Amino acid sequence: MSLNVEQLQQEVEFQLSQLDFPKQPESLYDPLRYMLSLGGKRMRPILVLLANNLFGGKMEQAMPAALGLEVFHNFTLLHDDIMDKAPLRRGNSTVHEKWNGNIAILSGDAMFVKSCQLITQTHSAAMPDVMNLFLKTALEVCEGQQLDMDFETRETVDVDEYIEMIKLKTAVLVGACLGIGAQIAGATEEEVKHAYDFGVNLGVAFQLQDDILDVYGDEQKFGKQVGGDIIANKKTFLLLTALKNASGETASKLQHWLNYQGDDNLTKVNAIKEIYAALHVKQSAETKMNDLYSEALSHLDALPIDQNRTTALRKLSSMLMLRES
Amino acid sequence: MSLNVEQLQQEVEFQLSQLDFPKQPESLYDPLRYMLSLGGKRMRPILVLLANNLFGGKMEQAMPAALGLEVFHNFTLLHDDIMDKAPLRRGNSTVHEKWNGNIAILSGDAMFVKSCQLITQTHSAAMPDVMNLFLKTALEVCEGQQLDMDFETRETVDVDEYIEMIKLKTAVLVGACLGIGAQIAGATEEEVKHAYDFGVNLGVAFQLQDDILDVYGDEQKFGKQVGGDIIANKKTFLLLTALKNASGETASKLQHWLNYQGDDNLTKVNAIKEIYAALHVKQSAETKMNDLYSEALSHLDALPIDQNRTTALRKLSSMLMLRES
Repeated sequence: MSLNVEQLQQEVEFQLSQLDFPKQPESLYDPLRYMLSLGGKRMRPILVLLANNLFGGKMEQAMPAALGLEVFHNFTLLHDDIMDKAPLRRGNSTVHEKWNGNIAILSGDAMFVKSCQLITQTHSAAMPDVMNLFLKTALEVCEGQQLDMDFETRETVDVDEYIEMIKLKTAVLVGACLGIGAQIAGATEEEVKHAYDFGVNLGVAFQLQDDILDVYGDEQKFGKQVGGDIIANKKTFLLLTALKNASGETASKLQHWLNYQGDDNLTKVNAIKEIYAALHVKQSAETKMNDLYSEALSHLDALPIDQNRTTALRKLSSMLMLRES
Repeated sequence: MSLNVEQLQQEVEFQLSQLDFPKQPESLYDPLRYMLSLGGKRMRPILVLLANNLFGGKMEQAMPAALGLEVFHNFTLLHDDIMDKAPLRRGNSTVHEKWNGNIAILSGDAMFVKSCQLITQTHSAAMPDVMNLFLKTALEVCEGQQLDMDFETRETVDVDEYIEMIKLKTAVLVGACLGIGAQIAGATEEEVKHAYDFGVNLGVAFQLQDDILDVYGDEQKFGKQVGGDIIANKKTFLLLTALKNASGETASKLQHWLNYQGDDNLTKVNAIKEIYAALHVKQSAETKMNDLYSEALSHLDALPIDQNRTTALRKLSSMLMLRES
């Protein structure tokens, strides 16, 4: 059966709305309901369902884990928002702003428990493997978030360390979605590994594209201020590549703008973009991104299944890689 | 085989010290190691092992879950300390004081994942039931902590609501330790239920004793300032019972001291203790505590097993109920 991504998205949205949380205590469960109501692309559960379908699994068997992974993803957003002191999430107040920090910590904890409960609803033959991959991934996501925070205060960060950080912080969860979908369908260990590796490589590529869009995106389509990473001196792939490749006067100029304390952000953004252009930083990022995307697709190619089954997943990946927001 | 509580404690301590956490990122895993090194009575894992032994289970089969429950307990302490802004935990700096709030949130999350991973090491026949009871309990513990925070700002709290809160916040975890130990040993559903109910009742009784010791304990043996709950107007079983039973002049006096803004804590403590004495509040608490303890023991009596096997558990419970600290 071939699956339509938009239909899957609607189905996931409906199933999420049907999740049953206790009424009391309101101050614990209202933030959970709120987080899940803020929307999003629901990419993770859709990837679980597509991977499951790839190996002939039934959608209803993969749905609890698919929802569990979406709930887990939202739990990480909830706690990350506290740590980042973020005021907004998808254009709405974050939980710690709308309620308070304590409620955000605790409802996040409850959300994590809820995600585990959904995972345990997986049929018993697959459950142990699914749970192991899920928990291994959850721990790696914590490691990635910690590295991200560590990098903020570190003097120097290597480009490879950055790739490792985004791999842990975001890509392994994409990989786990694919791997878990495959596990639930009863795929072999090798097939699960290919599905997982497809997801991890896609996830890193996706994150690099985020870095690129933050500088070169169309403000209208991107939906947030272009250049935000530059203004904040965020150690992205672009900045780290520039720091690695700059020398002489270019290096001094770059350092000057990184130390800049003024408020003429537009001039800063343009100056750093000029340095990026001189150092071909955008091309470096695009090359890396395309390599990762190819690597991802090679894992689909390697699957010993009818390649027609991979069409929906390939279409979705290419949409994700061509996105402008 | 009869088990010796001190030997079990040593074994648990040793096994905890053998838990293997990754070296990196240090800022994620050092706080975990630190929390687990602060000691404690290790009552929860010991209860898992004793319950497992009650039904003839092998200790090594119950050890991963026993450790998982101790790690989970320490995760709840870590996050509770942030919410309570507590400076000290077992005489040492809390994680959010020694490191910072963000690190405390994230290392707590990682600690929770780690506890789930330990639970999944349970042998496959018992794992699904153990995981279900564990996750149900974890969610209830979040609910209990939320109710506890809600009560702080609520005008009135009913004694029964208070009992329900401490049941969720601390007693269900004690119940889960007993139930999970029984599940791992392959006990019947009815046996698991009795073990669980024994634990829940014991847990509530234990918490009531904490309330009593905070007012009537021997400062030297109790290890913390006696009267702390009174000074903080903490809504304990004692205060809520006094508020329920006081009338006329006694009610006015009580209200006066609850509104007292001065710093003569000793006079406040003594005044409230006088009110408690007039209202026989200590006796009410002791009666409730003893009823719960009897109820707990009745669940051991009801077990269709050689009652000699219950000796270690009875001895430990009576030690817990006679404790002075």
